[in-house]
Amino acid sequence: MSKSLIVGVDIGGTTIKIALLSETGDILAKSKIPTPVKDGEDVIIGDMVQAIWALLAQHGFTREHVYGIGIGVPGPVEPTQGVVLRAVNVGLRDTPLKAKTEALTGLPVSIENDANAAALGEMWCGSGRGTANLIAITLGTGVGGGIIIDGHVVHGVKGVGGEVGHVTVNPEGPLCNCGKKGCMETYGSATAIITGIEKAAQNGKSPLLASILQEKGYLSAKDAFDAAAQGDLASIEVIDTAGFYIGLGLSHLGNLLNPGKIVIGGGVSSAGEELFKRIRASFDQYTFPIAAECCEILPATLGNDAGVIGAAWLVYNSQKSVPTVS
Amino acid sequence: MSKSLIVGVDIGGTTIKIALLSETGDILAKSKIPTPVKDGEDVIIGDMVQAIWALLAQHGFTREHVYGIGIGVPGPVEPTQGVVLRAVNVGLRDTPLKAKTEALTGLPVSIENDANAAALGEMWCGSGRGTANLIAITLGTGVGGGIIIDGHVVHGVKGVGGEVGHVTVNPEGPLCNCGKKGCMETYGSATAIITGIEKAAQNGKSPLLASILQEKGYLSAKDAFDAAAQGDLASIEVIDTAGFYIGLGLSHLGNLLNPGKIVIGGGVSSAGEELFKRIRASFDQYTFPIAAECCEILPATLGNDAGVIGAAWLVYNSQKSVPTVS
Repeated sequence: MSKSLIVGVDIGGTTIKIALLSETGDILAKSKIPTPVKDGEDVIIGDMVQAIWALLAQHGFTREHVYGIGIGVPGPVEPTQGVVLRAVNVGLRDTPLKAKTEALTGLPVSIENDANAAALGEMWCGSGRGTANLIAITLGTGVGGGIIIDGHVVHGVKGVGGEVGHVTVNPEGPLCNCGKKGCMETYGSATAIITGIEKAAQNGKSPLLASILQEKGYLSAKDAFDAAAQGDLASIEVIDTAGFYIGLGLSHLGNLLNPGKIVIGGGVSSAGEELFKRIRASFDQYTFPIAAECCEILPATLGNDAGVIGAAWLVYNSQKSVPTVS
Repeated sequence: MSKSLIVGVDIGGTTIKIALLSETGDILAKSKIPTPVKDGEDVIIGDMVQAIWALLAQHGFTREHVYGIGIGVPGPVEPTQGVVLRAVNVGLRDTPLKAKTEALTGLPVSIENDANAAALGEMWCGSGRGTANLIAITLGTGVGGGIIIDGHVVHGVKGVGGEVGHVTVNPEGPLCNCGKKGCMETYGSATAIITGIEKAAQNGKSPLLASILQEKGYLSAKDAFDAAAQGDLASIEVIDTAGFYIGLGLSHLGNLLNPGKIVIGGGVSSAGEELFKRIRASFDQYTFPIAAECCEILPATLGNDAGVIGAAWLVYNSQKSVPTVS
């Protein structure tokens, strides 16, 4: 029986997503299960493996069809030994995820931090295609990121490389959850944008936002972009500030790493051109000209699938037996 | 006849430095010649090769003793093909330095940007020893840098990776020679420190600096540190500012790359502890705690030899026939 499948897994604090992928990164089937966070690492790994067998069986496959399993986790990892150093949301610490999953499945396993996996996914099958030097960031509740240099993820000495959201963009800026001041995350996350427009709704600066807040009972980042499109000055100011500081933070990556692409995903990025043009302007202003000219800044295209696709890429990349595709 | 030597070369705008090194990176002999900048690439390469033969002969060696030649140049390179993309101070542009030097010598040649070579030198034989994830910066007339991740130099897509001096540390800061505002170089270079104390000497803020200026006719970065040691407040302010912004710029590297060491060389760094403690404080303030804790910030130890040693490392690393040493 010839192998044809890669299993990609994305372990999150709420759900474990599982996908079967072809050798070219196409998703053939998907499933998800709740993450049994409270039950400890062995139950988490056991449930994940059961769900993999179930998905394979459901689509008429067996273990013999599978090249290997790639897993993304929300925390720093030691990729060579395949150890999860910390994943607070999932309750993992110093977990030999690779060894334990290999023992249970008899298949080769590769692991990676989830933000790094998402970056690899965008490089393999998304808008990062065509360069081996890219950064992928996600503008969500926080700002996550993965850095890829010459096709390799930057882990650093303690696995915390790629903390793009915690680059300082204003030394005098607001306090971040990480304990530092003025991190990119304090301006560019959905949380930061919502905080900004909530303030404008409440302090009388924006009657429009105040009426949306009264009507819905809450505000979302999308409200900021919608209100800005209607000319709401307070919303425009919040978006200007977010775009400026995201672009400034990305300029550090441009100057230091000279990437070919920066790929931006997450809820906030779906606001599209209005945000991207502000990010681009600030990036160009603060990036060394040669480095700015050769760097595209693009929306991510894989959405929530980036993680499982990138996890599968780990298997694709590690196994010489997987046919090489362009 | 068995091989035992590596040739390391550092091509600068004024001189070409040549060294013969052992397989462990020890310098056995050195020479230098003026760089014939005006005469074009073929004369530059020809003179360099003649000087290599002369140094070998002077010490009783021949080409047969040499594993290969490593060359550092002041500008971005394409390392695989061995092409110098631009080296303005030397008048090189799209120069196939590797191919031309190999044709003239019959020896394998590797090339690298000089700041990157210096970083490799510090990694191999200097204070960067013991980690494969390090950044080396040089605080001189400007601020240069090289970034090494997992033992590999970061070149980026156009060879301008590692422009540490042009990371923005203050978006409202002074204009830099590169055309951008508030680059780390505008605060942390010797030039910036001298400009700061010259102003204090001239505007009456520092009678001490004014008297040094009158006596010598000029001020150096060392004068700033000497005056600060005597309690001169204007000098202390200039050094505080330099240390703060160097530390802030290095925090970007800490957060993004999680290096094990940052090695600082160049004239300004020789001021020692007074500058380093300010850099460290600012770095710790703006770097994600896990990344800050595991990163040492150290003075470079190889001085002007870092370039030829790092150039030699290229040969050491590229040739499997060179015995591996720990």
